[in-house]
Amino acid sequence: MSEIIATYLVHDRKGNLEKKAEGIALGLTIGSWTDLPELEKEQLKKHKGTVISAEELEKDTDLEGKYTKGLIKIAYPSVNFSSDLPAILTTVFGKLSLDGEVKLLDLDFSDSLAKHFPGPKFGIEGIRERINVYNRPLLMSIFKGVIGKDLHYLEEQLFDQLAGGMDLVKDDEILFENPLTPFFERVKRGGQIIKQLKEETGKNALYAVNLTGRTSEIRDKARFAAEAGATALLFNVHAYGLDVLQSLAEDDEVPVPIMAHPAVSGAFAASDRYGFSYSLILGKLIRAAGADFSLFPSPYGSVALKRKEALGIAEECTVSSPFKKVFPVPSAGIHPGLVPVIMKDFGNDSIINAGGGIHGHPNGAKGGAAAFRSAVDAVLEGITLEEKARTNEHLEKALKLWGQYEAAK
Amino acid sequence: MSEIIATYLVHDRKGNLEKKAEGIALGLTIGSWTDLPELEKEQLKKHKGTVISAEELEKDTDLEGKYTKGLIKIAYPSVNFSSDLPAILTTVFGKLSLDGEVKLLDLDFSDSLAKHFPGPKFGIEGIRERINVYNRPLLMSIFKGVIGKDLHYLEEQLFDQLAGGMDLVKDDEILFENPLTPFFERVKRGGQIIKQLKEETGKNALYAVNLTGRTSEIRDKARFAAEAGATALLFNVHAYGLDVLQSLAEDDEVPVPIMAHPAVSGAFAASDRYGFSYSLILGKLIRAAGADFSLFPSPYGSVALKRKEALGIAEECTVSSPFKKVFPVPSAGIHPGLVPVIMKDFGNDSIINAGGGIHGHPNGAKGGAAAFRSAVDAVLEGITLEEKARTNEHLEKALKLWGQYEAAK
Repeated sequence: MSEIIATYLVHDRKGNLEKKAEGIALGLTIGSWTDLPELEKEQLKKHKGTVISAEELEKDTDLEGKYTKGLIKIAYPSVNFSSDLPAILTTVFGKLSLDGEVKLLDLDFSDSLAKHFPGPKFGIEGIRERINVYNRPLLMSIFKGVIGKDLHYLEEQLFDQLAGGMDLVKDDEILFENPLTPFFERVKRGGQIIKQLKEETGKNALYAVNLTGRTSEIRDKARFAAEAGATALLFNVHAYGLDVLQSLAEDDEVPVPIMAHPAVSGAFAASDRYGFSYSLILGKLIRAAGADFSLFPSPYGSVALKRKEALGIAEECTVSSPFKKVFPVPSAGIHPGLVPVIMKDFGNDSIINAGGGIHGHPNGAKGGAAAFRSAVDAVLEGITLEEKARTNEHLEKALKLWGQYEAAK
Repeated sequence: MSEIIATYLVHDRKGNLEKKAEGIALGLTIGSWTDLPELEKEQLKKHKGTVISAEELEKDTDLEGKYTKGLIKIAYPSVNFSSDLPAILTTVFGKLSLDGEVKLLDLDFSDSLAKHFPGPKFGIEGIRERINVYNRPLLMSIFKGVIGKDLHYLEEQLFDQLAGGMDLVKDDEILFENPLTPFFERVKRGGQIIKQLKEETGKNALYAVNLTGRTSEIRDKARFAAEAGATALLFNVHAYGLDVLQSLAEDDEVPVPIMAHPAVSGAFAASDRYGFSYSLILGKLIRAAGADFSLFPSPYGSVALKRKEALGIAEECTVSSPFKKVFPVPSAGIHPGLVPVIMKDFGNDSIINAGGGIHGHPNGAKGGAAAFRSAVDAVLEGITLEEKARTNEHLEKALKLWGQYEAAK
């Protein structure tokens, strides 16, 4: 049967988990059941939500005890909703999100339902083909403070980062349409620099331009950008809506990879008791909707996710599913000394994404990029960063400045 | 200066509120300041975020004490972002939403920024004109379990509710495109019933049809619906994005009031420490984006908001602002015995919205509607419900079944 199964974490003050589960399954579908006449039961059966399980969990010891903590799984028949994410979210977490302490942890799409979603257009494989790098994590960097700066500054930075060895460079997510660095100028000049680099060095690279503006104009803007030479698009999907991402991913006239930024997602995933899980919102759902990259806070920096949450996102990006794989991009607080632990935690199929760890390098952005490349080589060669640093001045300086992450040893 | 001022509630584990505020103001705008050369400072000055205040609050006594609780206000210059809600939300709460325990309580638009937003097309006044009722709260009801039912069932219910005295009827928010009650059939038949009622009784009424489907087709669907006789649209704005609502409100070819449903909004407003405040997301922002009605959980039912939160939403809907007023619609758990307290809490300019309180009435939906009308009359006449019930059998039965809300006495 075509359906979606939702898994909720509940903290219930009334104490009867099974009753709560039954209330949800009915309340979000046909409303009532027990008192219905047999004929109506027959008629409504295929619309009725079903409790799959209601399992009590151990309580957190540091919290007061006046609640039951549990996991509830409910199956909703697809016949009740249209096959789009707004309808699905409204069904499984519309009214329910307002009804006490309930967090939506997971959604399982039946195969027939999954068919309605595009998944990534390129995915990890497609992006590796574009960049022509297969056996190591990719390296990405972000611009340093672009607000208030002009195109010349942007071009110089883009060139330095790519020439230093970065595979991808992305706009800052807070860079919007502005007279100093207009979107289409960034697209065109960025495309030219990437072409120039290819001609001079044979290197393939991507520059993700921040796609912003009104929802109604986003798709046309993306099409024009692709035509004008954009190699990738950055998109603040959670400030728009997952369905808007899906429209971009489905559009054949937008033949460029899409990078989903996590901006605003903390608002509906940071709480332990409310909202969505990070793995659902930054992993499974943006994968179904068609992001090629998922950025999320790394577990290492000051803006950090819990390790389990960050790994959970990466897992959803890459686990076997009907969709292509999404490149996980753990971000924030990344420096070359972290490369071994990043590669251990996230594997080869991930992207090492740095800002300060590039621009703050004593030898500038080029030095920072070289230090990252050298650190990745060290891990692939099976030697320590210290050992590698003996023959690489950039890495040596980076380790001196930022040290190494303890857990990496 | 054109700017937006954000007010955050923070629980900071590091203890220095002013430093935190300064870090936010810089981190979400130009990145750094102190070490910049004078020339660059001059150049970037107009882009710099400014800390308006950082005020420590008393801690909650029932929580462990290892944090500083405070209110932070920061002004972001409009020159940094385009005048759309995705850009604004990404600026003021993009990365920040992921950075510890921070809740966005409020946003103050400068007048020049507010000019970029439409506000409600009709507002309270415009809706009162359409319904031709001025001196009392309006009465609205929702269909009882429509999933799996056919058009005939829907038409009968719609007629009974309106004939009983309801001013508005709305679709269930979980009623999507489906073969039994397709959207355009609901629009057409609903329009016919409302027309018939007008001809037979002179009564004006609205029926809010649930506008659903893919974001890319929403505006066209709304236009066609308006042309086909829709009198109002229900919209699950938080499953789409505020900017989608704005496009509907700005569209001259959608000359019907829009009812914003709160579905999914609990995911980003229910926590005390993360996400948005309800008054911002269900009040101020949907008003700027152009909703004519705001539905939210009443403080009375089982799916309930705290009284302060519910009143805070209503306040943002109706307080003096550059925009028309939004009709507050406290919903869930409403029965006739609550009418005095609803009118005391939310005033005349509100909508009394009932589901079970209509359909569960011993005399059916018509009886329920009559009981509500009678309860409203009692309050306007300054007499008690008991007194009124002596001359109104429907109200008498309602009070017997559901009782009265204690605080109303």
